[in-house]
Amino acid sequence: MNKEKETLKHKTYVVIFGTHTNAGKIFDICLIIAIFISLLVLLLDSVSSINNQWSTTFQLLEYGFTCIFTIEYLIRLWCSPKPTSYAKSFYGVVDLLAILPTYLAIVFPSASFMGVIRLIRVLRIFRILKLVRYLQDSNILLRSLLMSRRKVFIFFSAVAILVTIFGALLFVIEGPEHGFTSIPQSIYWAIVTITTVGYGDLVPQTGLGKAVASVTMLLGYSILAVPTGIITAELHQEMNSHKSLVKCPNCMKNGHESDAMFCKHCGSELADPDNRVVPVENK
Amino acid sequence: MNKEKETLKHKTYVVIFGTHTNAGKIFDICLIIAIFISLLVLLLDSVSSINNQWSTTFQLLEYGFTCIFTIEYLIRLWCSPKPTSYAKSFYGVVDLLAILPTYLAIVFPSASFMGVIRLIRVLRIFRILKLVRYLQDSNILLRSLLMSRRKVFIFFSAVAILVTIFGALLFVIEGPEHGFTSIPQSIYWAIVTITTVGYGDLVPQTGLGKAVASVTMLLGYSILAVPTGIITAELHQEMNSHKSLVKCPNCMKNGHESDAMFCKHCGSELADPDNRVVPVENK
Amino acid sequence: MNKEKETLKHKTYVVIFGTHTNAGKIFDICLIIAIFISLLVLLLDSVSSINNQWSTTFQLLEYGFTCIFTIEYLIRLWCSPKPTSYAKSFYGVVDLLAILPTYLAIVFPSASFMGVIRLIRVLRIFRILKLVRYLQDSNILLRSLLMSRRKVFIFFSAVAILVTIFGALLFVIEGPEHGFTSIPQSIYWAIVTITTVGYGDLVPQTGLGKAVASVTMLLGYSILAVPTGIITAELHQEMNSHKSLVKCPNCMKNGHESDAMFCKHCGSELADPDNRVVPVENK
Amino acid sequence: MNKEKETLKHKTYVVIFGTHTNAGKIFDICLIIAIFISLLVLLLDSVSSINNQWSTTFQLLEYGFTCIFTIEYLIRLWCSPKPTSYAKSFYGVVDLLAILPTYLAIVFPSASFMGVIRLIRVLRIFRILKLVRYLQDSNILLRSLLMSRRKVFIFFSAVAILVTIFGALLFVIEGPEHGFTSIPQSIYWAIVTITTVGYGDLVPQTGLGKAVASVTMLLGYSILAVPTGIITAELHQEMNSHKSLVKCPNCMKNGHESDAMFCKHCGSELADPDNRVVPVENK
Repeated sequence: MNKEKETLKHKTYVVIFGTHTNAGKIFDICLIIAIFISLLVLLLDSVSSINNQWSTTFQLLEYGFTCIFTIEYLIRLWCSPKPTSYAKSFYGVVDLLAILPTYLAIVFPSASFMGVIRLIRVLRIFRILKLVRYLQDSNILLRSLLMSRRKVFIFFSAVAILVTIFGALLFVIEGPEHGFTSIPQSIYWAIVTITTVGYGDLVPQTGLGKAVASVTMLLGYSILAVPTGIITAELHQEMNSHKSLVKCPNCMKNGHESDAMFCKHCGSELADPDNRVVPVENK
Repeated sequence: MNKEKETLKHKTYVVIFGTHTNAGKIFDICLIIAIFISLLVLLLDSVSSINNQWSTTFQLLEYGFTCIFTIEYLIRLWCSPKPTSYAKSFYGVVDLLAILPTYLAIVFPSASFMGVIRLIRVLRIFRILKLVRYLQDSNILLRSLLMSRRKVFIFFSAVAILVTIFGALLFVIEGPEHGFTSIPQSIYWAIVTITTVGYGDLVPQTGLGKAVASVTMLLGYSILAVPTGIITAELHQEMNSHKSLVKCPNCMKNGHESDAMFCKHCGSELADPDNRVVPVENK
Repeated sequence: MNKEKETLKHKTYVVIFGTHTNAGKIFDICLIIAIFISLLVLLLDSVSSINNQWSTTFQLLEYGFTCIFTIEYLIRLWCSPKPTSYAKSFYGVVDLLAILPTYLAIVFPSASFMGVIRLIRVLRIFRILKLVRYLQDSNILLRSLLMSRRKVFIFFSAVAILVTIFGALLFVIEGPEHGFTSIPQSIYWAIVTITTVGYGDLVPQTGLGKAVASVTMLLGYSILAVPTGIITAELHQEMNSHKSLVKCPNCMKNGHESDAMFCKHCGSELADPDNRVVPVENK
Repeated sequence: MNKEKETLKHKTYVVIFGTHTNAGKIFDICLIIAIFISLLVLLLDSVSSINNQWSTTFQLLEYGFTCIFTIEYLIRLWCSPKPTSYAKSFYGVVDLLAILPTYLAIVFPSASFMGVIRLIRVLRIFRILKLVRYLQDSNILLRSLLMSRRKVFIFFSAVAILVTIFGALLFVIEGPEHGFTSIPQSIYWAIVTITTVGYGDLVPQTGLGKAVASVTMLLGYSILAVPTGIITAELHQEMNSHKSLVKCPNCMKNGHESDAMFCKHCGSELADPDNRVVPVENK
């Protein structure tokens, strides 16, 4: 009987963690739908005009979804071959965080100040991270970012230095009377400007301030080119190294275009491009 | 006589659908001019100061253009070898949509609420899609986008997750008293910020809110690099594969620069670059 | 004597049009300084607080500079081997436009409405185009842009279509009561949004309007990647084809890095990189 | 004894200027922490609500840090083999600038106008430049920028010309009554627009002004692509030339991928990628 239980455990594992069986696919689709509806309930719940009317329905739906996600979490814990390592993994923590806030809100119902309740409620929005599980092909992008992490770090350090200096300059030039009340506030202005967001809630008003602001903008404009350049060059290398991995099954020669249908050396058919790309990117 | 009719039908088909005959070119130019004037009438019609003065003229012009486009649509239906497949195609639907709104406005003249009439009138602006027919060389761009559709999808999912989390954070930090009245509203703020649009109609006002907003901006700044990198790398591959398609007609060797005039191996003249690019892109 | 005159004419031509002689370099530097001071006078002249005090000085300086540029223009006409083709060339027209506005202001001093006088005065700012003459190395950039002109045209057509459709959508959704008074006005909003400028003078205020605006922003965000991709890919090709033009003077092999000092095949010294790049780019 | 002193001097030199010994690493980490705390004190000092409460503490901390940095500067001067060349170097000047402002504020305590004191205080923020010392890997980025300095200069000249012309156009079209009070002011507007910052403190209000502004935006949108293209192409070349430097220690063949672990020709293990990249970038 223990063996049967083991078989059941393994079967459940394949359905819940795997994506290749039909049952696994159906389970995943149901879970994605549940996450989306639960997020929708959360979003609508925060709109006060809707909340006033549907408050009870939203509360019930929320309890229902928390129930479902709790059962899912427990089953995952039960059927996983190594429950502790699952619980400690990124997905394990995310799955736990997706249900915890609702229980916290039940435990501390009489929390005197609104802020805490709102915070706990909104924490449920991290449920969206449960969707990361389904972005499996993000590897190539992440790897490009990781391989250029040194350059990205240098870039952000350079931005931090520039933003501090220009913020301090504007603080001296414009002063508190034009809204630049402190250096942190002025650094906030410099970030808003150098990223070309430009809210306009804080703008230089003296001639000299406008001249320095113009330099900041043009600098931000050119600096924007650096991360783009870094990531493009990395991605290009990634893609090239992938392209050369498309091997002809007949003559074993590499270097085929990623949309090639036939080997350019011997003419035998290559694997279907759409299917071929996936395993390569997951490698 | 039936045969003659068939010949006329085919001749009309060549003129209307084709672009190689002189008559076909003249027809296309007339049609483009008609579309532009009809769009101009529509734009000016919406400016109330102009509308008050020219209302009747605009109405007449509009009926005229609808008449022309109706005749064009009927001729296309008549001379097309497969009328149903034309009617169901993208261009068929667009051609129908370009005339339908005017007829709808005639059928429901006494529509009690303004909104519907305005909606029907403005729908005529989709007439601009009739111009898509003439953007034939957009293939290389579209193909680049299509080949990177998986990466673009992952990118947009990542943006959606980030925007939801940062929107919810700002909702908790700033609260309704600073304009962040609901999570959807705060997500709108996060999109405005992460895309570096920065309207400034909704800005963080607390110190913590500004700090989190700064992180959002810098993140948006770096993330902007990812789609650029993807599309650049794809376009680069596309162009390289095209370059190698420029074949010398004499020695049949590939790999010539896209602006090369003579084969670099045997010196014989290559096809004119400007003409050469077009068929390759249309392939 | 005629011959002497011819020699003088040719010498003047070398000094004024050429840049290789010492006298030619000094002439060019003086001209650049004159253009900059003349532009500075024009800029300060438009600031009313400064204008009130220095009005007469500015007027005299302006007459002085116009005099200098007139003499320069006449000498260029006189010493040019083909005066008519110079006068018709881009630089000839620019040189004429740089002096014309001042004479026009003298001829029509009693122009009754301010606008015309201001317009004529400000036209003098096109004097800045005289500086284009000194941006000789802009060839590689311009060629990249020209070679991708088809793609850039398609890109702008696509932007025009998107902007028209989204502008019309917002006009219907928001309506005149929220500032979207006409379709041209709404198209202006769509351009401000899709280019991520985001002034904030016109923002959607209904929920649906904000949702559609979010789509517009994310679209603008991704579309921004397309021209960058096009130009990067072109520039990359341009540079690669240039790199391969760096030929070893000894073994005549190509393909050296652009900063290489010695031939990587035979070890003989290559031309100085800084000098080498210029003639290649000017080719 | 003199020899012993020399040995001590050299040992101190290795600790303070070098980064390879353990003592050197500890010294660097302490210095980085001191710089960060000193910057934090400066930032908080400028926030008036915090300053009122902690003024004396901040003053004492500031004297303490200035003391530490003065001692550091003197030790560097003493142990450096060539004190004058250190004092004249970029880092020597930065180290001096990091301590000077505090002494200036002590010397001129009765400076009658606030501005000067604030200026001197804020100058201490340039202490952040002391961190540049630790951004050693920025070479590849800087080299890319330097190699494309000609193109970047041309790009900025083109932007300056465009901004001047469009600023002048808007000045004529909108005029002082809509906020475009002078040409410099209008050029500021053009920079804000062409860099897509878009504060919204100055917006065109006439129809024609909006049309010209739309052209400015679309131009800025496309021009943004140029520096990105330049830097991407340069970075790509830099990276490619680096990749080819990864040599197999066994068969001495080049051209390995930057993340390759084994030689693709003979299969012998390559140096660890993370360590390998650093020396190459520092080369």
